[in-house]
Amino acid sequence: MSAVGLLGEIAGVGRGRGGYSRHVFDRAEGELRAWFAERAERIGLDVETDRNGNLWAWWGTPGPDALVTGSHLDSVPGGGAFDGPLGVVSALDAVAALQAEGFRPGKPLAVLVFAEEEGGRFGVPCLGSRLLTGSIDAGKARALRDQDGVTFAEAAARAGFDPERFGRDEVALSRIGTFLELHVEQGRGLVDLGSPVAVGSTVIAHGRWRFSFSGQGNHAGATLMGDRHDPMVPAAAVVAAARRIASKVEGARATVGRLIPRPGGTNVIASTVDLWLDARVTGEDRVRPLVDEIADAAGKAAAEEGCEIRLSEESYGGTVAFDAGLREELRALLGGAPELPTGAGHDAAILSGHTRAGMLYVRNPTGISHAPEEFAEDEDVEHGARALAEALRHLST
Amino acid sequence: MSAVGLLGEIAGVGRGRGGYSRHVFDRAEGELRAWFAERAERIGLDVETDRNGNLWAWWGTPGPDALVTGSHLDSVPGGGAFDGPLGVVSALDAVAALQAEGFRPGKPLAVLVFAEEEGGRFGVPCLGSRLLTGSIDAGKARALRDQDGVTFAEAAARAGFDPERFGRDEVALSRIGTFLELHVEQGRGLVDLGSPVAVGSTVIAHGRWRFSFSGQGNHAGATLMGDRHDPMVPAAAVVAAARRIASKVEGARATVGRLIPRPGGTNVIASTVDLWLDARVTGEDRVRPLVDEIADAAGKAAAEEGCEIRLSEESYGGTVAFDAGLREELRALLGGAPELPTGAGHDAAILSGHTRAGMLYVRNPTGISHAPEEFAEDEDVEHGARALAEALRHLST
Repeated sequence: MSAVGLLGEIAGVGRGRGGYSRHVFDRAEGELRAWFAERAERIGLDVETDRNGNLWAWWGTPGPDALVTGSHLDSVPGGGAFDGPLGVVSALDAVAALQAEGFRPGKPLAVLVFAEEEGGRFGVPCLGSRLLTGSIDAGKARALRDQDGVTFAEAAARAGFDPERFGRDEVALSRIGTFLELHVEQGRGLVDLGSPVAVGSTVIAHGRWRFSFSGQGNHAGATLMGDRHDPMVPAAAVVAAARRIASKVEGARATVGRLIPRPGGTNVIASTVDLWLDARVTGEDRVRPLVDEIADAAGKAAAEEGCEIRLSEESYGGTVAFDAGLREELRALLGGAPELPTGAGHDAAILSGHTRAGMLYVRNPTGISHAPEEFAEDEDVEHGARALAEALRHLST
Repeated sequence: MSAVGLLGEIAGVGRGRGGYSRHVFDRAEGELRAWFAERAERIGLDVETDRNGNLWAWWGTPGPDALVTGSHLDSVPGGGAFDGPLGVVSALDAVAALQAEGFRPGKPLAVLVFAEEEGGRFGVPCLGSRLLTGSIDAGKARALRDQDGVTFAEAAARAGFDPERFGRDEVALSRIGTFLELHVEQGRGLVDLGSPVAVGSTVIAHGRWRFSFSGQGNHAGATLMGDRHDPMVPAAAVVAAARRIASKVEGARATVGRLIPRPGGTNVIASTVDLWLDARVTGEDRVRPLVDEIADAAGKAAAEEGCEIRLSEESYGGTVAFDAGLREELRALLGGAPELPTGAGHDAAILSGHTRAGMLYVRNPTGISHAPEEFAEDEDVEHGARALAEALRHLST
């Protein structure tokens, strides 16, 4: 089945009024895992899960120097239909197309689906690839909690995985010769370039920081303005500081998309506010200095309000440049397709520290991502799948 | 049983790590309703519910010119043990004490428990007393929704009430000759005065406004700072403006304790942010001008960010002065107890537009309310119950 047809099959899974919500080990994501396994087996691939909850579908006997392609099936809360699934359905489409013309790869080939790429449930993005490569401590990963207080270890155990086996997977990792991820573009780069497909060049340095403010919960009517220790005030100052400071730094992006006041009553001064800062800067690794500047503003605002502040880095990844030789091969193969940097993070960027890795992007006419407006025209989806098939043919020969 | 003992009986109901959460028609509140009925019946009172979900326990035949006392059993999210329940247990204690000494009231006497005083579930405070008095349109009340989208009508129906019967209740209202509510103090007024009990003088003008911002959800890494329409930015500006503007106005309080970004992902620029402003000003009714000034700042911030803003008034109540004659009687009766204004809202203030109404406050050594630190010493609780018994004896003779 074509990539467009495969996307159509899962269009109803995890869809709500505000977009898709498919999170690791929840019902929608479980449904997608089962669907993927069924679809992969139907074209003769052997499906297995690794120690860290990632799904592999092998064409040929698993072994070293394998060519691996894929992406992820989870979404941000309220996300779009393409971020993640496009790379998975294009991989299935490309494999089926190569099979149909009688092509036999000269090395093992696998379609890989990474777990919890968005960090939408447990907070750390690219969790599956970080565990696989040992970029995150397994104990730290097991202890991550979702909004309901369920740990990643508990959720994994309920889904049938043994969390004690989490961690760097030498066997799985050593098999990967090349990893190639196809992904919908998350900006207007390809629209501006007038091209349906591009080759990934770099991934921006980025991370997530949690700011926790605590003050004194109290009555909204009986507490005079001068007597307050309201953590919402320094929390709002972080939102303003992130905007102000990031706007001054070339290539910087700083976002507060998640903020939780507790207890969250209208007539109640909050006791605590937790917020998450997503910060990224292009080029050299200037993210931590940016966060330091925002944290300074946060600390001052907290002190003025008589609130406590705690700051923790939940994830960090430096600037990644994909393999130069692979990029050149892909560009030549795809008729001089343009190169494109990205402000988004990807599993391919995590893997690039451990193996040869690269990416292909497919045009997104809205330039919007992580929202229901995220889009790709059918024609461009098919173009992407054909480009991926060409790349797989070339790289596995 | 004493007021202190009765409080002890319900100390475990609806209690969580962050304080009490008891909301109309939820499990904890249902448990408290059953407990109240059982306790009232045990001292020979006849328990009934009115058309609007309020609970009445009658000493003697229901009838006109009744003396009614009581408060509420619901809490804010993460509230304290005294706000509401103290007035209910003190009423039961006072009635039992009068019975024990063979006192017979010269008029009908009732203990009244109002529904949804805090507006913790459906957003409108004093919902039970507003419905009883017709201060809120019944259709509007039926359509109020909780965080899960359940309407007040649906929740009431599930609890066995007929929402079609909601609205001004002439029969119930016409029976009330005097309403007297005992309540824990929500500031440090009585601490400063060195008195265990005070007579209520005025209730501050106050209301709740909902600010809804909508922008463009997008990717936190791929969207340049200058391309954003991030509703979190004007939302943060409201928090800052509320603090700045209210601090300049004598007697004003403005609070944002509840703020919800959607979809609420760390790596997602929010599509919408809803926040609630609680605003109050002492003296003349200057609340709406205060809110107008904050709304101006909100509108400017939204326009700068290219976001839409919608503003709605969810509740409003003007300044209330309790019945002057009743205040004098109570002060004389209680050995010259001090008078105290309050920044909090109360069902007694809603009723005061329709019947003679007054309040008694019990000292709160922390001065904190709507938080787990809210407190009253056992000795002061007993003092309050005795003061209420004296007032009931005098007013029903």
